[in-house]
Amino acid sequence: MRHIAESTIRRLSLYLRFLEEFEQGGISTVSSEELAQRGGTTSAQVRKDLSFFGSFGKRGLGYDVHELAERLRQIMGLGREWKVIIIGAGKIGTALAAYRGFRERGFSVIAVYDSSPDKIGGKVDGFTVRDIRNLSRDAQREKPDIAVLTIPAEGAQEVVDRLVASGIRAVLSFAPAQLQVPPTVALKNMNMAMELESLSFALTNQD
Amino acid sequence: MRHIAESTIRRLSLYLRFLEEFEQGGISTVSSEELAQRGGTTSAQVRKDLSFFGSFGKRGLGYDVHELAERLRQIMGLGREWKVIIIGAGKIGTALAAYRGFRERGFSVIAVYDSSPDKIGGKVDGFTVRDIRNLSRDAQREKPDIAVLTIPAEGAQEVVDRLVASGIRAVLSFAPAQLQVPPTVALKNMNMAMELESLSFALTNQD
Repeated sequence: MRHIAESTIRRLSLYLRFLEEFEQGGISTVSSEELAQRGGTTSAQVRKDLSFFGSFGKRGLGYDVHELAERLRQIMGLGREWKVIIIGAGKIGTALAAYRGFRERGFSVIAVYDSSPDKIGGKVDGFTVRDIRNLSRDAQREKPDIAVLTIPAEGAQEVVDRLVASGIRAVLSFAPAQLQVPPTVALKNMNMAMELESLSFALTNQD
Repeated sequence: MRHIAESTIRRLSLYLRFLEEFEQGGISTVSSEELAQRGGTTSAQVRKDLSFFGSFGKRGLGYDVHELAERLRQIMGLGREWKVIIIGAGKIGTALAAYRGFRERGFSVIAVYDSSPDKIGGKVDGFTVRDIRNLSRDAQREKPDIAVLTIPAEGAQEVVDRLVASGIRAVLSFAPAQLQVPPTVALKNMNMAMELESLSFALTNQD
C-alpha cells in the first residue's frame, strides 16, 4: 500500500467515530457531505480519504453506515485485540493503566513495568508492577504489540532499544525526548509541554 | 505576522530544547548543521524555520547558543508565566496538576475544577478542587490564560463555550470530542485513543 499521510489516518479515526454515533442512532446511510460537515472538512476530502482504500458508497445514495464503519475498523486494525505494555508506573502510567477508553477500542493493557524498587511489586489498577529487567524475557512469552512509555527523558532511548530488541513494533512515548527507532517500528510522541508551548506561541503571536 | 505552520512551531520547540542542553553543557556556538542533526532534519530546514523570525547567526560562524535560545524563548512566549486551569479532577487531571514539567516551562497551574460533588472540595496535589459553576466568576478575577480539559466527551463543548465566554484564549483538550472554538481561541487536541489507533493502523498496514 502506498504511504498514507498521518492527517488522513486521523480523519479516518474521526469518520469512524461519527459512523459509530450514527450506528448507535440507528442511521443506516450517510453522505460524504454529512461526514464532512461533522468532521469540519469537505466532501471532496472525505471521498479522497476513503478512495485510498477502494471504492465505497453509491453515487446519490451515500454510504452504508454499518458497512463503512466495518471497513474502517478493518483498515485501522481495530477488529482485533492489541496487547499494550506500559513502561513507567508514575502518575501518567497509572492513569493510562486505568483508562477504560483503551480497552473499548481493543487496546488491552497486559502489564506495567518500572525500574524503581519502590514501585516494583506494588499494585497499579490491578496490575502488579513488574521489574523492567524482566521485559525481554516476558516479551518473548507474551508478545506485546505496543509499548506506552511514561518515563523521564533520561534513559528513555535505552528502554526503547530494549523494547525494539524484544520485538515490539509500535511505541507511544510520553517521554520528552527525541527517540530513534528503526523504520520497521512505528513511533508516536505525546509531549504535553510541547503542546502547551504551541499554545503559548499562539497566545504570544495572536493579533 | 504571517501564518506559521504547526510543524515549524514544533521544530522551534525542539531547537530550543537542544539549545538549552548546549547552554547547560557550556557550548557557546552551534551551526545549523548541528541543530539539524540533533533534530533529525536538514540545515536548510533549520535556516528556513528561523528565517520566519528575522536574521540569526553569522555565515561561517553559526549561531550564538544563548542569544538564539533567548530569542526562541521570546518567540514562543516562554519568557513569562502562563496561568493554567485544569478542568476535570480525574486521573489524568490529577496527574497533570502534579506534573513538574509544566512549571519549569512557565505554565503554572492555578486551579483545578470539577462538576462532581464527590470531587469538589477534595485535594489534588495541594489544590482544593473547585466547583465548575464558579468558573466564570473566578476567571474574571484570576484571568487564566490556558484551560486544560480532562473531562469526558459528553458536555465538553458546553464547558468550552463557558470557558470561551469567560475570556480563555487557549485550550488543550484531552476530551475525545471535536470541539468548536472561535478563531480567536487556540485549541489543541490530545487524543490518546486516536494516537493508539494510528499505531494500530501502522501495525496493520506494515509490510
